Amino acid sequence: MSSLSEGLTQILIPVAAILGIGFALLQWYLVSRVKLASNDSSNGYKEKLIESDEEEEGVNNLEMSIKCAEIQHAISVGATSFLFTEYKYLGIFMGVFGAIIFLFLGSVRGFSTKSEPCTYNQGNTCKPALANAFFSTVAFLLGGLTSVLSGFLGMKIATYANARTTLEARKGVGKAFITAFRSGAVMGFLLAANGLLVLFISINLFKLYYGDDWEGLYESITGYGLGGSSMALFGRVGGGIYTKAADVGADLVGKVERNIPEDDPRNPAVIADNVGDNVGDIAGMGSDLFGSYAESSCAALFVASISSFGIGHEFTAMSYPLLISSMGIVVCLITTLFATDLFEIKKVSEIEPSLKRQLLISTVLMTAGIAVVTFVALPSEFTLFNFGTEKEVKNWHLFFCVATGLWAGLVIGYTTEYYTSNAYSPVQDVADACRTGAATNVIFGLALGYKSVIIPIFAIAIAIYVSFSLGAMYGIAVAALGMLSTIATGLAIDAYGPISDNAGGIAEMAGMSRKIRERTDALDAAGNTTAAIGKGFAIGSAALVSLALFGAYVSRAGIKSVDVLTPKAFIGLIVGAMLPYWFSAMTMKSVGSAALKMVEEVRRQFNTIPGLMEGRAKPDYANCVKISTDASLREMIPPGALVMLTPLIVGTLFGVETLAGVLAGSLVSGVQVAISASNTGGAWDNAKKYIEAGVSEHAKSLGPKGSECHKAAVIGDTIGDPLKDTSGPSLNILIKLMAVESLVFAPFFAAHGGLLFKFL
Amino acid sequence: MSSLSEGLTQILIPVAAILGIGFALLQWYLVSRVKLASNDSSNGYKEKLIESDEEEEGVNNLEMSIKCAEIQHAISVGATSFLFTEYKYLGIFMGVFGAIIFLFLGSVRGFSTKSEPCTYNQGNTCKPALANAFFSTVAFLLGGLTSVLSGFLGMKIATYANARTTLEARKGVGKAFITAFRSGAVMGFLLAANGLLVLFISINLFKLYYGDDWEGLYESITGYGLGGSSMALFGRVGGGIYTKAADVGADLVGKVERNIPEDDPRNPAVIADNVGDNVGDIAGMGSDLFGSYAESSCAALFVASISSFGIGHEFTAMSYPLLISSMGIVVCLITTLFATDLFEIKKVSEIEPSLKRQLLISTVLMTAGIAVVTFVALPSEFTLFNFGTEKEVKNWHLFFCVATGLWAGLVIGYTTEYYTSNAYSPVQDVADACRTGAATNVIFGLALGYKSVIIPIFAIAIAIYVSFSLGAMYGIAVAALGMLSTIATGLAIDAYGPISDNAGGIAEMAGMSRKIRERTDALDAAGNTTAAIGKGFAIGSAALVSLALFGAYVSRAGIKSVDVLTPKAFIGLIVGAMLPYWFSAMTMKSVGSAALKMVEEVRRQFNTIPGLMEGRAKPDYANCVKISTDASLREMIPPGALVMLTPLIVGTLFGVETLAGVLAGSLVSGVQVAISASNTGGAWDNAKKYIEAGVSEHAKSLGPKGSECHKAAVIGDTIGDPLKDTSGPSLNILIKLMAVESLVFAPFFAAHGGLLFKFL
Repeated sequence: MSSLSEGLTQILIPVAAILGIGFALLQWYLVSRVKLASNDSSNGYKEKLIESDEEEEGVNNLEMSIKCAEIQHAISVGATSFLFTEYKYLGIFMGVFGAIIFLFLGSVRGFSTKSEPCTYNQGNTCKPALANAFFSTVAFLLGGLTSVLSGFLGMKIATYANARTTLEARKGVGKAFITAFRSGAVMGFLLAANGLLVLFISINLFKLYYGDDWEGLYESITGYGLGGSSMALFGRVGGGIYTKAADVGADLVGKVERNIPEDDPRNPAVIADNVGDNVGDIAGMGSDLFGSYAESSCAALFVASISSFGIGHEFTAMSYPLLISSMGIVVCLITTLFATDLFEIKKVSEIEPSLKRQLLISTVLMTAGIAVVTFVALPSEFTLFNFGTEKEVKNWHLFFCVATGLWAGLVIGYTTEYYTSNAYSPVQDVADACRTGAATNVIFGLALGYKSVIIPIFAIAIAIYVSFSLGAMYGIAVAALGMLSTIATGLAIDAYGPISDNAGGIAEMAGMSRKIRERTDALDAAGNTTAAIGKGFAIGSAALVSLALFGAYVSRAGIKSVDVLTPKAFIGLIVGAMLPYWFSAMTMKSVGSAALKMVEEVRRQFNTIPGLMEGRAKPDYANCVKISTDASLREMIPPGALVMLTPLIVGTLFGVETLAGVLAGSLVSGVQVAISASNTGGAWDNAKKYIEAGVSEHAKSLGPKGSECHKAAVIGDTIGDPLKDTSGPSLNILIKLMAVESLVFAPFFAAHGGLLFKFL
Repeated sequence: MSSLSEGLTQILIPVAAILGIGFALLQWYLVSRVKLASNDSSNGYKEKLIESDEEEEGVNNLEMSIKCAEIQHAISVGATSFLFTEYKYLGIFMGVFGAIIFLFLGSVRGFSTKSEPCTYNQGNTCKPALANAFFSTVAFLLGGLTSVLSGFLGMKIATYANARTTLEARKGVGKAFITAFRSGAVMGFLLAANGLLVLFISINLFKLYYGDDWEGLYESITGYGLGGSSMALFGRVGGGIYTKAADVGADLVGKVERNIPEDDPRNPAVIADNVGDNVGDIAGMGSDLFGSYAESSCAALFVASISSFGIGHEFTAMSYPLLISSMGIVVCLITTLFATDLFEIKKVSEIEPSLKRQLLISTVLMTAGIAVVTFVALPSEFTLFNFGTEKEVKNWHLFFCVATGLWAGLVIGYTTEYYTSNAYSPVQDVADACRTGAATNVIFGLALGYKSVIIPIFAIAIAIYVSFSLGAMYGIAVAALGMLSTIATGLAIDAYGPISDNAGGIAEMAGMSRKIRERTDALDAAGNTTAAIGKGFAIGSAALVSLALFGAYVSRAGIKSVDVLTPKAFIGLIVGAMLPYWFSAMTMKSVGSAALKMVEEVRRQFNTIPGLMEGRAKPDYANCVKISTDASLREMIPPGALVMLTPLIVGTLFGVETLAGVLAGSLVSGVQVAISASNTGGAWDNAKKYIEAGVSEHAKSLGPKGSECHKAAVIGDTIGDPLKDTSGPSLNILIKLMAVESLVFAPFFAAHGGLLFKFL
């Protein structure tokens, strides 16, 4: 038996969640103390009173504040309006797909309302399949709503914080860093805590109906993961297309043709570009990581429910995944204080080490946290379900499973940093290759991306081997949770990136001085790296999560083994490995086409609006926002359909074995494409920033802005945009989502799947 | 029993091989009738007498002939000298690796010289493991030598034909086409016939020792495939780095910086570039396809030897793979006549259809050929070995196996043509994206490459499903042979590409008129497409071959299933899927670094040799040749080591299950990377050519040479160079070679492998 009582578990989990929410609100309050000038101009004076009048320039410049507030307002309105339009479509999707779930799962036993013998817990009776269909649908809707909420709240705080970061940059890089980082933390903690709380409440509510039928209870709960991830898919793809169409379009005309700086207010696509950062990199990322979190929890819970403590109804042991996440919130809370209160950033060069320290601190503390949770929550010995056989496990085995996941995350984070930060030789080599033009820049960048896959894959492979050997599929699921346990910190440093990017944009648009722009650029360069790290985490955890879901799917579909050496599984494997390419082809092409439209519009405005180039007339920002919005909503449908329909079609027509092959193939191939795409893009972006910043002799020899080298670097950066912000990060959703969808529909496929082979 | 007697089989196979060699020599003779002016100037006059004095210009210009002969001589000397240097290194490698094979395999039974009970054919005695080690080593050396010979002969005829094609281009596009195509045919037939003949003779010689022990005999013969493919690896990688370092270096300085045309004689890297086409695209490709051919034959023979007709010693049925290849030679011979004699090319626009027709004709004829061979060579019913179980098979099942492989090859060829020829919308869209610069060109090109994977993968998947279901692993092996049965035609249209490319280079260097250059450009554009088709075939067949080898490996290693849901197999799968990226990172970076060195040298020559730009002084070609040679020999070692060592390390340390995972992972992931890389590169090259040629209104609006669009297209073309000629085509060797190496070493791994897990 666990040494932690059920009652205490029931209290500790919500307390941790509420603590997280409280901490997020506190950070929000601290950010809000930076006053923006609003129409009520008294704020401007108040700001003057609150903030110490340090050495810096323009701090008391009210006009500047008002300008920043205006720009922020435009970005916020654009982002909110896009998200609401997107959510309208997603609402329809959720209705339709919810109905599909209900109908497919309901049909497993012909919509019978009679209770049936349980599948695993033999001898007992379980609730009817129809009930599972109903509760799966409810869980799906809940997951979707929580995902949307996570993304939306993130976007809100990001668009609230961007101008505040700009204003703080007038006082120094440290202040600006803290504002951006705190805002990231708001998002991180809200997401982690909300995800946990909604899941906890749902389980307790579902339990009112299910009672002792935990098999059915946790089977239905998997719908939560599916809902979370399917929203994330559209968030990532739609947001990704939005942001990159605007970014690429703005750069191609602005930087390349018109030779005006990035984020110049004369560029008509500049607002769309900044809106894009918030809807793509913030809202999309938030939904994505929420999805991973929800899925790994669901996978772990499902596998646990058919293991000894599930069958024995030990609530505390069952809640082990939730307790890990609760501990994670506490650990991240302490970790955040190191960045915001215990250390102070004084120089640009301290930004990246500080963010890296966050990763290390949270990992070290969490290792101790995992040990505590493992020893109080789990019985010292128990059995796990392992594809039809049982596996004897000790509680310290599980400690190693979670810990390897956690540390594999750190390895992935540090590797990503090494390959995408311009403080190290890989990015500097790419920058150096710009000497001979864009072509060598691209060749070196692609090679860098390919190379950056090696260490993360070994880290993932080791984590899989250890956790698989020690804890079977449950081990994998909790390893994924281990990697995601520090999600609040991970998201904080990740969201910090786009906020800084926006802050830089606002500084440029408000016409702030070169010095301030240099500071926001430095924040932004670190942000590119942290964004890549965030994507690395998202991909690494997606790999583990997908494998855990895959295992759960196989268990639920009643397959005993997935033998590559059978024709059905092998064709699944090779076709599955192809899907990431098909998907990437669609998203890349979408960004390309939307960018071409954007280019035409921007060119049109420059050519037809008199005085625009001279800064005497204002561009029509709204038209560019509309192009991005329309393109992303239209273009997100085909890749979305590919991901959502593949498991349904394969499962229904070809059956469970081929689907298992598809899942394995897309997992092992998609991870590579995703990591290399994200890192290549991050490296190109930072190679460009390296040349622009010109901090070393080497960098100076390549620059300055506008040199031939710099032009070559801009081309690389532009190519990297859809790779790192559209295709790459969407791919981890592809692999997770197909796995969780297969898991949810497994009873249907097992009952009615494989039509084609049946008729042949 | 087969209706074809053993005696007749023993006659028919060598007759077909000798017929192929004879036909190749005939084609060579026909090409040689185009006279080059040599020092013995009487040839010049003779040419005048032989060739009809048609309307065309410069036909009787002796000076031009002499110039062409000089350039050809320089290219031929460069290529020969590189290959000999390369072969010196390969000789050392073969010695060392041959020793490794002997020692590893000899150690399986502790170097015992005693006969032992057979593994499959129970009750009988088989030759000692030491004998298998010895004969495997011999077969390895034979395979290596034949591979080298195939590449070398191809290079010889290509460097013999290039200038002749140029001279014929003076008389019209049709004559030039026929010269280039005939020369390709020489290579195709020599390779197909030599490969068959050496294999046939080896089997008969080995049989003198082995007698009735066919298990040991065909086990040893697999060394032939390993030898062929390991030479191909170094040929592809070394040649690929050579050719692209020179090409990229020449383009970056010549086209981009100095604004002189491609292949301009003032460019110091121009000879190295043309040498590269011959050592990379010709010799490398030849070795590669020979490797595929040898491996699929060996895989089929090995699997057959443990099936009912192997155990029953039915020689004709056993020789089914060789009979298919024999029939292939006859079919290709007839097919060739359609291009060289039955139809005549009169216009540029007829080139691509004529080459496509070759594919179609050979496929249709071969389908009938397969039917004949199947019904005369195979007994009407027999059993195949299927991972420990037996499978009842009828002979018409095998017909479908071979035929689906063959037709899948056609589908791959046609799909590749669609995505890489500038006659269709995909490449035209890529060209159109150049309007907004290099970045959109690259984004669209990458998307095109990803998209082009879809249909080939479905074709491969269907071929695998059908042949796997009907004929187990033997079915897969003969499906691969089916795809390769028309190898002579495939190679002819493939080798045609680099020959035309060289012909264009020679025309430019010899200062021929614009009209002639336009003709060679048109030949070359079709050549880019056929090169891509050739790579498509190479990749598609590699996928099937690897799967067959993989199956043979699993059988030989005594594994009953490769279950993805075991930790050992899964980590193999994900690490295996990573290997193509690691490998590509190495080769891309190698090309990039070597190209940077080349750029420096070319710049140095332009800056320090007075009068070079004005054409008054000659550049130092030899120095550039030396840079390419040194770089490729040095840089081919790390990727070569990665491929050669991975199976040895994984098998020895992690054991047979993990190695099985690695093979499956690298197969399903490598195929995608290889196809997309080859097609992206081919598409960029032809998008550039589309803009240069300006045949349509649309193309004219993008051009001419030197326009902004064209510059963007050149950048894409340069990026595509290492993708399509180094990384992409080397990857299919990676997947094949690891599989065949695992097969050869399987007895060792099964006996002594998995050390790490044993100690843990």
